[in-house]
Amino acid sequence: MKVGYLGPKNSFTHQAAKSCFPENQLTSYQTIAACIHSVYQEEITYGVIPIENSLEGSVNDSIDRLFHLGDLVVLGEIVLPIKQQLLVANQTTRIEKILSHPQALAQSQQFLYEHYPTVPIEAVSSTTYAAEFIAQHPDLGLAAIASKKAATEYGLNILSADIQDNLFNQTRFWIISRKNQLLPLALGHLKKATLFITLANNQAGSLHKILECFAKRAIDLSKIESRPLKTSLGEYFFVLDLLYDDNEALILEAIEAVETIGGSVNYLGLYPLKTVLEEEL
Amino acid sequence: MKVGYLGPKNSFTHQAAKSCFPENQLTSYQTIAACIHSVYQEEITYGVIPIENSLEGSVNDSIDRLFHLGDLVVLGEIVLPIKQQLLVANQTTRIEKILSHPQALAQSQQFLYEHYPTVPIEAVSSTTYAAEFIAQHPDLGLAAIASKKAATEYGLNILSADIQDNLFNQTRFWIISRKNQLLPLALGHLKKATLFITLANNQAGSLHKILECFAKRAIDLSKIESRPLKTSLGEYFFVLDLLYDDNEALILEAIEAVETIGGSVNYLGLYPLKTVLEEEL
Repeated sequence: MKVGYLGPKNSFTHQAAKSCFPENQLTSYQTIAACIHSVYQEEITYGVIPIENSLEGSVNDSIDRLFHLGDLVVLGEIVLPIKQQLLVANQTTRIEKILSHPQALAQSQQFLYEHYPTVPIEAVSSTTYAAEFIAQHPDLGLAAIASKKAATEYGLNILSADIQDNLFNQTRFWIISRKNQLLPLALGHLKKATLFITLANNQAGSLHKILECFAKRAIDLSKIESRPLKTSLGEYFFVLDLLYDDNEALILEAIEAVETIGGSVNYLGLYPLKTVLEEEL
Repeated sequence: MKVGYLGPKNSFTHQAAKSCFPENQLTSYQTIAACIHSVYQEEITYGVIPIENSLEGSVNDSIDRLFHLGDLVVLGEIVLPIKQQLLVANQTTRIEKILSHPQALAQSQQFLYEHYPTVPIEAVSSTTYAAEFIAQHPDLGLAAIASKKAATEYGLNILSADIQDNLFNQTRFWIISRKNQLLPLALGHLKKATLFITLANNQAGSLHKILECFAKRAIDLSKIESRPLKTSLGEYFFVLDLLYDDNEALILEAIEAVETIGGSVNYLGLYPLKTVLEEEL
């Protein structure tokens, strides 16, 4: 069995994947697109991809590709605490430049604004790359924003700890698959369901009627979001996350009701959640 | 009167700003944050910032800053057609690398995948920078994705025209201000209103009740979107765009109804739209 993840090694997605699968089954992919396509082609059984961060919002590339490819299901969700560290090589005292991935930079923008307002920032392809690069160039006055794992891996010092703009920063990851199959592991007892809904006339106004199908059946939404259909401005599909409360029959009934009023529904599945604690990383 | 825009010169935001204000009133800002803060501090009267692209969706940085700063209003919306060109310097026949801004790369991903699947891509800070760089280094086998304006400005050849993934690619820009004042220009007759809504218990489930306040009064939504409150996973604020149909009294009534059921509303204003045609650019 092969499990793909958005790499490189020691990325947060790698940590999420390791919390569920043994290391020797894991394959790193350079992009979300490559990982999703490999699952779609059934070259690998499962893929682990980031879906949403509590500071930065949805990972649009993941959501849009799952919608446009279709035929993929969600088997589980992993919620990981995300803590960013400001790392330097031993010798560094004065910081000339700070390197990191755009998401990590965005998650730490308040800290950077307060403590390093004039230091140039450089966006690089991953937090792991940033850590590796500054370890290899200890004399250039560089700092990296990356995880504790990266600090250990590359022998870097933590100059400021937990610099992300909110202490409860978390990211949701999905375990996706081409087929609706059982996961060879137990996640948690809590479950969620996710639907992609496209409206016949693409009017956000009709959304009220769609939500009524769920409200009538006392189905709670934990999230709703619109994403462009990539046709023209103002045309969207909707992503709905439903809280599961032993009510799959009601969920299926609500989906039928949505279809009756002209909505088309892609049901990504009913899946268990696993919340990883910081101590487990 | 000073008008700020997200630069550099010849960026699409610059073109949007020029369609409404004389060039000698325009000031370029390097980031969306810098432009919005300058409007907030009243160092400039108006700011022109990108809000949403039909392929890539909302510009989260703009939306989130307007929400978290508060006290800013929208005075007008400019809709611009966005066409991307593959540009090369005269001498270039074989392309070794393609440079552009991440948004332009994302808007052209299907073209790149079909025609240049193995050519390395480099993300740079703006499409203008990409065009300028390849003009300055004509011998390196570089291509840039940028606008026709940039081709003219830097004397580059258009190798492939209109390569964006959809012919009707458009971007919405807002003219923002600290005070609700009149614009010194006429836009169009169509109007829209935008609201930011936060729910008391932050449950997307209550959204149905909110939408009911508008549906009841036959107010049509052209868009709805959730953005994270940056507190913890699952807590959102909502962005609602309403179509205006000579019904401001009803809109204000709906806002009151939303507040009655515990929603808090930031009304960004009722503003006219201007759609710029390609010939006008």
